[in-house]
Amino acid sequence: MVVGIDIGGTTSKIGVVDQSGNISASAVVPTPESEDPAILIKEISRSLINLLPGGFDNTGIQAVGVGAPNASFFRGTISFAPNLNFAKNREVDFAGIFLEITGHKPVLTNDANAAAIGEKIFGGASEMDDFMVITVGTGLGSGIYVKGALLYGSDGLAGEVGHTVFQRDGRPCKCGKYGCIETYVSASGLVNTFRELSTNPPEVETPYDIYEIAQTGGEDAIRAFKLTGERLGIHLADMAAIFSPEAIFISGGLISAGEFLLEPAEKAFDANLMKHHKGKIPLRISELKNQQTAILGAAALGWDSIRKHEIR
Amino acid sequence: MVVGIDIGGTTSKIGVVDQSGNISASAVVPTPESEDPAILIKEISRSLINLLPGGFDNTGIQAVGVGAPNASFFRGTISFAPNLNFAKNREVDFAGIFLEITGHKPVLTNDANAAAIGEKIFGGASEMDDFMVITVGTGLGSGIYVKGALLYGSDGLAGEVGHTVFQRDGRPCKCGKYGCIETYVSASGLVNTFRELSTNPPEVETPYDIYEIAQTGGEDAIRAFKLTGERLGIHLADMAAIFSPEAIFISGGLISAGEFLLEPAEKAFDANLMKHHKGKIPLRISELKNQQTAILGAAALGWDSIRKHEIR
Repeated sequence: MVVGIDIGGTTSKIGVVDQSGNISASAVVPTPESEDPAILIKEISRSLINLLPGGFDNTGIQAVGVGAPNASFFRGTISFAPNLNFAKNREVDFAGIFLEITGHKPVLTNDANAAAIGEKIFGGASEMDDFMVITVGTGLGSGIYVKGALLYGSDGLAGEVGHTVFQRDGRPCKCGKYGCIETYVSASGLVNTFRELSTNPPEVETPYDIYEIAQTGGEDAIRAFKLTGERLGIHLADMAAIFSPEAIFISGGLISAGEFLLEPAEKAFDANLMKHHKGKIPLRISELKNQQTAILGAAALGWDSIRKHEIR
Repeated sequence: MVVGIDIGGTTSKIGVVDQSGNISASAVVPTPESEDPAILIKEISRSLINLLPGGFDNTGIQAVGVGAPNASFFRGTISFAPNLNFAKNREVDFAGIFLEITGHKPVLTNDANAAAIGEKIFGGASEMDDFMVITVGTGLGSGIYVKGALLYGSDGLAGEVGHTVFQRDGRPCKCGKYGCIETYVSASGLVNTFRELSTNPPEVETPYDIYEIAQTGGEDAIRAFKLTGERLGIHLADMAAIFSPEAIFISGGLISAGEFLLEPAEKAFDANLMKHHKGKIPLRISELKNQQTAILGAAALGWDSIRKHEIR
C-alpha cells in the first residue's frame, strides 16, 4: 500500500491506495493557517494513525507521495506557493520535515504532474509514452510525459503551460505577465469572461454559479463556457504542435461543466491542429474521478518511485 | 568518417566530417527541379565519388546523416516540403531510394533537429541534457533536447515552435493559422515588419538589404530588427516556462544581423521569464559557424546514430 497526500490551500487530503488505484481509507484535514509547516505535517500524521491503526511501520506502507502547488520533485521542497501560508514567501524543505516527524521520506511533485502520473498509472494513459494532462481549476496546470517520463526540465520546474501567452497584451496575470492562458481558462478566468459578456451580470462568484445559469438556458453563461472552451482548444493545439502527443487529457474542476466547455474545446482544438495532426490527436477527459484525482495522483507518484527504485 | 548532407530548396550541401567536427571535404550541388528524388540522389552520389575517390566502401564512411525540411527520423521520409519539388505534394521514402542507389541507408531528420544535434555533438551544448536550438532563417525551426535526447513526440514530428501563435489573429501563416511566430521572426517576417514600419519604404527583398540600411543608421531598419528580436525573446520566454532548459541557442541566417537583433532579443527574453528563471537561462548564439551548421548537423546525426548503435 501507498499513502497519497494532496496539500491544498484550504484542505489537505490523505488516502491509502493499492496498486490498482483502490482507495481503502481516506481523510480530509483542514490546512492550518500557521506559517509553521510542522503543524500541518503533525495533523497529517495524527490522521494517518487513525487510518492505519498499526502506524506506518506495521501496515506495509511502502511509499508516501505528496502533490502540492509549487512542489519540487528534485528538491523535495514547496516554494512561494501563494495559497499556502507556510510556504508563501519562502522555500520549505517539506520532505525533510515530514521525515523528521513521521520517519518516512515522501516524494513530492506539483499537483498537475501528480495528475499526469495518476493518468499514467491508474487512468487512460497507461499505454501511452507521450501525452499531456491539463488541469483546469483555480489555475491551469500541466503535466507532460515525454518518452514515458514526466518532463521536469533542467531544474524540475518545467511544464508551466498556464503561464504561456494566449492573448498578447491581454489580461494581467498574477505571474507578472499579460495574457497568460490561465487568465482566460481557469475558475477566475471563466468568471471574468462571463462578467465581460453580460451587459447586466447577475452576482456570480464561482464557475458553479455560471454552470447553474447555463443549465437554465442563460445565453451569456453558455457563451462564457463556449469562449473558455474555444480558448483552451486553440491554445492546446499549439501545445500539440510542440509535443506531438498521443492524446491530451483534461482534468480539474472546470470539466464538471461537461459539454458546455468540452464540445467547443474539442472543435477549436481540431480546427487549429497542424495538417499532419488533424484528426489524429484526441482531446480526452481524464479517466480519474474528479474528487479522487489529487489523492490518486499523489499515490501514483509513490508507486512510481517504488518501481523506479526496483529497476535501479 | 561520416557523410553529412543538407537538402535545401535551391542547393544541397555534402560534407565528409570526422568525430571532432572537422570537414575534410565538401561539395555543393544544385537541387534539381525534377519531381523524381532519384535525380538528386544520383547527383549527390556522383559528387560523393569525387569527394571519396575510393567510393563509400573503401574510405571508412560509417554513417550518412541527412538534414531536410519535413524529414521524419522515424520513417526516413521527406513529406509535403513546399520548397522541394520532389516532395512537395507527397511523402517520399528518401532513405529507401538512397539505399537503393548508393548501398548506404541514411539517417534523416529535419534541419532544426539536425542543428540541435550539431550543437550537442560539436557546439556549445556538449555538457547539456536539456536545451533548445532555434533556427531563424527562411522559417523558424526548433530542435529541443529533453533528458539528453531529441524531442520527437509520438510521431517524430514534435518541435513545431514556429507554428505556435505569437499574436492572436495576427499575420496569415502558410500553415493556415494566423499570428504564428514564424510570420514575425523569419526572413520574410522581418521584411514585412520593415515595410510596416516605413512610411516610404525603399525596395528591400531580403534581411541583408535591411541590414545594410541599419548599418548606415537607417532608423526604420534598426527598429525592424529591434521589434523582431523582441518578439523572438518574448516568445522564447514562453518556451522556457514550458521546458526549463539550461540554455536556448539561436542559429540560422538572421543571426548575422548581430546586436541589431540579439540585444533586444536577450532583453525581452529575460524580462519575460518566470520569476524562478530570471537570470538563470542564457539566450546564446550557436557555436557552430553559420555556413557549416547544416552539414555539421547532418553529420552529427550520423555520429549520433553510430553511438546509439554501439550502446545497443
